[in-house]
Amino acid sequence: MSERSDQTTTGILGGIRTPGDLKRLSSEQLTLLAAEIRDFLVAKVSRTGGHLGPNLGVVETTLALHRVFDSPRDRVLFDTGHQAYVHKIVTGRQDGFDQLRQRGGLSGYPSRAESEHDLVENSHASTALSYADGLSKAFTLRREDRHVVAVVGDGALTGGMCWEALNNIAAAKNKLVIVVNDNGRSYAPTIGGLADHLSTLRLNPGYERVLDLVKNALGSTPVVGKPAFEVLHAVKKGIKDAVSPQPMFEDLGIKYIGPIDGHDIEAMESALRRAKGFNAPVIVHAVTRKGFGYRPAEDDEADNFHGPGAFDPETGALTAKPSVKWTNVFAEELVKLAGERPDIVGITAAMAEPTGIAALAKKYPERVYDVGIAEQHAATSAAGLAMGGLHPIVAVYATFLNRAFDQVLLDVAMHELPVTFVLDRAGITGPDGPSHYGIWDMSVFGVVPGLRIAAPRDAATLREELREAVAVDNGPTIVRFPTGSVNADLPALRRVGPVDVLREDDRKDVLIVAVGAFGKLGMEVAERVAEQGYGVTVVDPRWVRPAPVELAALAAGHRLVVTVEDGVRAGGVGEAVASMLRDNGVDVPLRDLGVPAGFHPHGSRAEILAALGLTAQDVARDVTEWVSRIQASDSEPQPAK
Amino acid sequence: MSERSDQTTTGILGGIRTPGDLKRLSSEQLTLLAAEIRDFLVAKVSRTGGHLGPNLGVVETTLALHRVFDSPRDRVLFDTGHQAYVHKIVTGRQDGFDQLRQRGGLSGYPSRAESEHDLVENSHASTALSYADGLSKAFTLRREDRHVVAVVGDGALTGGMCWEALNNIAAAKNKLVIVVNDNGRSYAPTIGGLADHLSTLRLNPGYERVLDLVKNALGSTPVVGKPAFEVLHAVKKGIKDAVSPQPMFEDLGIKYIGPIDGHDIEAMESALRRAKGFNAPVIVHAVTRKGFGYRPAEDDEADNFHGPGAFDPETGALTAKPSVKWTNVFAEELVKLAGERPDIVGITAAMAEPTGIAALAKKYPERVYDVGIAEQHAATSAAGLAMGGLHPIVAVYATFLNRAFDQVLLDVAMHELPVTFVLDRAGITGPDGPSHYGIWDMSVFGVVPGLRIAAPRDAATLREELREAVAVDNGPTIVRFPTGSVNADLPALRRVGPVDVLREDDRKDVLIVAVGAFGKLGMEVAERVAEQGYGVTVVDPRWVRPAPVELAALAAGHRLVVTVEDGVRAGGVGEAVASMLRDNGVDVPLRDLGVPAGFHPHGSRAEILAALGLTAQDVARDVTEWVSRIQASDSEPQPAK
Repeated sequence: MSERSDQTTTGILGGIRTPGDLKRLSSEQLTLLAAEIRDFLVAKVSRTGGHLGPNLGVVETTLALHRVFDSPRDRVLFDTGHQAYVHKIVTGRQDGFDQLRQRGGLSGYPSRAESEHDLVENSHASTALSYADGLSKAFTLRREDRHVVAVVGDGALTGGMCWEALNNIAAAKNKLVIVVNDNGRSYAPTIGGLADHLSTLRLNPGYERVLDLVKNALGSTPVVGKPAFEVLHAVKKGIKDAVSPQPMFEDLGIKYIGPIDGHDIEAMESALRRAKGFNAPVIVHAVTRKGFGYRPAEDDEADNFHGPGAFDPETGALTAKPSVKWTNVFAEELVKLAGERPDIVGITAAMAEPTGIAALAKKYPERVYDVGIAEQHAATSAAGLAMGGLHPIVAVYATFLNRAFDQVLLDVAMHELPVTFVLDRAGITGPDGPSHYGIWDMSVFGVVPGLRIAAPRDAATLREELREAVAVDNGPTIVRFPTGSVNADLPALRRVGPVDVLREDDRKDVLIVAVGAFGKLGMEVAERVAEQGYGVTVVDPRWVRPAPVELAALAAGHRLVVTVEDGVRAGGVGEAVASMLRDNGVDVPLRDLGVPAGFHPHGSRAEILAALGLTAQDVARDVTEWVSRIQASDSEPQPAK
Repeated sequence: MSERSDQTTTGILGGIRTPGDLKRLSSEQLTLLAAEIRDFLVAKVSRTGGHLGPNLGVVETTLALHRVFDSPRDRVLFDTGHQAYVHKIVTGRQDGFDQLRQRGGLSGYPSRAESEHDLVENSHASTALSYADGLSKAFTLRREDRHVVAVVGDGALTGGMCWEALNNIAAAKNKLVIVVNDNGRSYAPTIGGLADHLSTLRLNPGYERVLDLVKNALGSTPVVGKPAFEVLHAVKKGIKDAVSPQPMFEDLGIKYIGPIDGHDIEAMESALRRAKGFNAPVIVHAVTRKGFGYRPAEDDEADNFHGPGAFDPETGALTAKPSVKWTNVFAEELVKLAGERPDIVGITAAMAEPTGIAALAKKYPERVYDVGIAEQHAATSAAGLAMGGLHPIVAVYATFLNRAFDQVLLDVAMHELPVTFVLDRAGITGPDGPSHYGIWDMSVFGVVPGLRIAAPRDAATLREELREAVAVDNGPTIVRFPTGSVNADLPALRRVGPVDVLREDDRKDVLIVAVGAFGKLGMEVAERVAEQGYGVTVVDPRWVRPAPVELAALAAGHRLVVTVEDGVRAGGVGEAVASMLRDNGVDVPLRDLGVPAGFHPHGSRAEILAALGLTAQDVARDVTEWVSRIQASDSEPQPAK
């Protein structure tokens, strides 16, 4: 690796402003450029944090792609957009990397606002082939002679959408190049029948070379009988079958080129040029290494360099001080619970480490199932496990469970099966931007009959609510908590049904219903509102969907109910509480605060919450204004009752 | 076919009350039984309606399954449960078929309440393999020696969940039998790379026979050189490869047995016994014919016998009088629109006929894409088509779009792409029961930023709102309408923004916000409430999500707002209207009527709506009671303002 420098935009890289600039480079220059790009990536990401490992793995692939194809006329799509940094670097965005993933700065994913070379902004895995199918169909129908290239990881291929797309791409027979970036892992090592198949292909010693050897050996063999040509053909096919297994993609009708060393630019270019020449769908199987060229990332078994925070570029040591995360608390309690109850099993969708399921797998390996990037299967195989007498805990990021709405609704809830979904990174997450915000779950899963959602406010309630969730034996439960360090414990004054009362004043002006981790915010708001002379009650419903009916009696004595939640307002806890109050004849005015409709940009969690008006100061100001207005109207003469 | 009779429960069939009874039958008796079952199916379904074609196709498969496996100890799961009639017949439920799919009668799908032989009640396609994976994992972990068998159609295999499941089943290596019931069609002929692969396998002339021929031809051929054994082996493999393509399932690590004639009970039994003997996952590829043994169903190109209404068993002619369905109106307007706008294309998920997309395909075949049972791909490939400059119209049943929530949210809406989803069979559908009720869409898709939902009330507004939907160029739209015959046109008095005012009295007591096809119900309710002396306004918002702000001004003069919708109350239009009124400072009390939380049983649409209190009589009684109570309270002395 060449010497690391802050001035990486000098050298060859400094001269690359558009993909066209790449086409003028010699082979030697390309090799140097690849090294410069790696230095650049390590230098920049070590300061901002970001997806390092995946991008170190696609340096040569991306350079080859932009030399062979003509973006943006040709369309290059990156599945799970976090592997698009190199693409960004060579499409004029080097300067943005100092503000990578920061509010107002460069997105960590493709962004149409940033560049005409970007098209797909969603970073959920396994979508690119479906987009590509649609695009190539559109180009065909409109008779536009443009290429579509989709880059997809072997991990993403475990997602069902890819299968649906491959099936359709094969049927459509339009020209379309699929680059399978096969590094043998998604976050964790890729698991499953497909992974085994890919590694069989990967270990292929090379059909052509073996055929030559055998041809020589057969040279002296007389071939007799009528079907001579057919026999020779059969022999060749037989050898091919023996030494070079037929890729299953060809069974589907998609041409296959590979395996190619994805770190050999010339080999990649040559393969891509062949692929470009076919007038049909073709897969280029590139074998790469995640983190290639940066030792700490290459040697990284736990995959910490998939998306690290800031780190020391020399040693790879993370800069941030360790703290206790919500995830850690969950993982610890999960292992404890599993020790008490042998029927508890864990499911992860290729994210054992980030979700904490790894802790369970370490202690009870036979009781954890990594299903790949396959949330639908996670949910429905959990239903099967539950039918078989187990209590599965499916741990996923909140945003990813959206993939399995139908499965949670029908396969789990309609069958009244005890499955607990643990949603990490719920609410506003931050630097990953809109496709990773876990703000939909309380609305969308809130409509599922028989499903109960818990939102713990701190470590103690997380442990407690997880235990309550796995104690439910007649339907699904969700336990959802945000990203980052866990809140300090916030003890309750008393409990009414499932509801914790966190604060009670003598006067009952405002009832704040603070959802989950917003318990802390609710208490801060109460302080400020109380300073204005109002009496404030703060409650944490703990179980937020369905809305506890106990809230009706608690609300009854107040002038105003305010709900505040870390999720979208539409269909959220606020609306559910309002509906429950209406149904119970409680007419106290209600105001619901939460995430407004929209796809909100990336930034830190605190920055985004501030931008959305979800700070103690903002909420307190709103609440004070509302309650003072209501008080003014209430102090007018009342009708006789 | 043997003579048809109403007394089909005599004969051999009459003696079959449990699967165990099948095991005592001779080969001849089984053949007779199969014919009796076909007679029974035709006789019963011709009266009640139901899924005829799929069940005629699995008679022998089901008999063989229940002879080889030991249900309910072994678990037999039917994907898309509508192919479980034969299973029901041989598990003690023959008597129920007179009330098939009728309220209180036998379900058209497996039902745990009916029988211990049933386990999975969800009839959305492609789920069975995931359940089976979970079940077999549970049996393995709990050391229970039980078999799991999943029956899945070739059409269902185009769904991504199957891919996710196969990948995991291969990795788990537990014993598990997958019967692929390959009839070459789901509703329509199955399309795609997988279908081509299956038909290659299906047309396989038989490897063993060809190998014998070639061995004879090679008998006189001297084999020289060192690698003699390897060459012979290679020749054999080559021949096998040439005449008997390697099934892709084996590439994934799943054993393959087939193809088997699925109408040959002995062959099926033998294959299943071999499969049962493996201690690993295995696929049995059964080639069957949909509608087998009943000529009108076999000859049925348009697939009317997939799930017909009542019909004449002799001729196959449907009994019901033809009427103009919502689907017909949509199809007609779609073709008209496509004639005007060359950028309009259609997408169906294997249901071109039932959704009306077939009409477009007939006129513009190159502008329709059948993606298979693959709603996720339908949504995201539509996003790709839209990125390529087209306006796709994705026509699906409302219940099935739940499969693509994440794709609609991120791939379409976040990218602000003009895709129109047309949701047929929205609301309470009827005899297909809870998994087919289209009651979730207005809640779930109502949270998607930038997505607009239209609910037409009659043929005229369906045409109009479809046109408005395809005129939207900056985001997705949904047009949703119910099953059955279209409502008579109900003209508006005037229009306020998007809102149609259907009725206005001089007095303004109650505002009824009637969603979509409930416009008719709203008008009937208004009649009855007005008879009690109250003034009633009825409006149809036409575009129901987001709730039109114009409703705030319309509501302001009334004592009570009542919303009534053909969808779940939780997160529905009623809550959205309440939220919008709150945000706009309109304090008129609101009551929202809709489908209460729960998985409601099958029956006719009218019966279910009546059971849920959604009749004009019930709603009018509620409204009258509410408004009279409010009036009583309002007539008390008012405070000075």
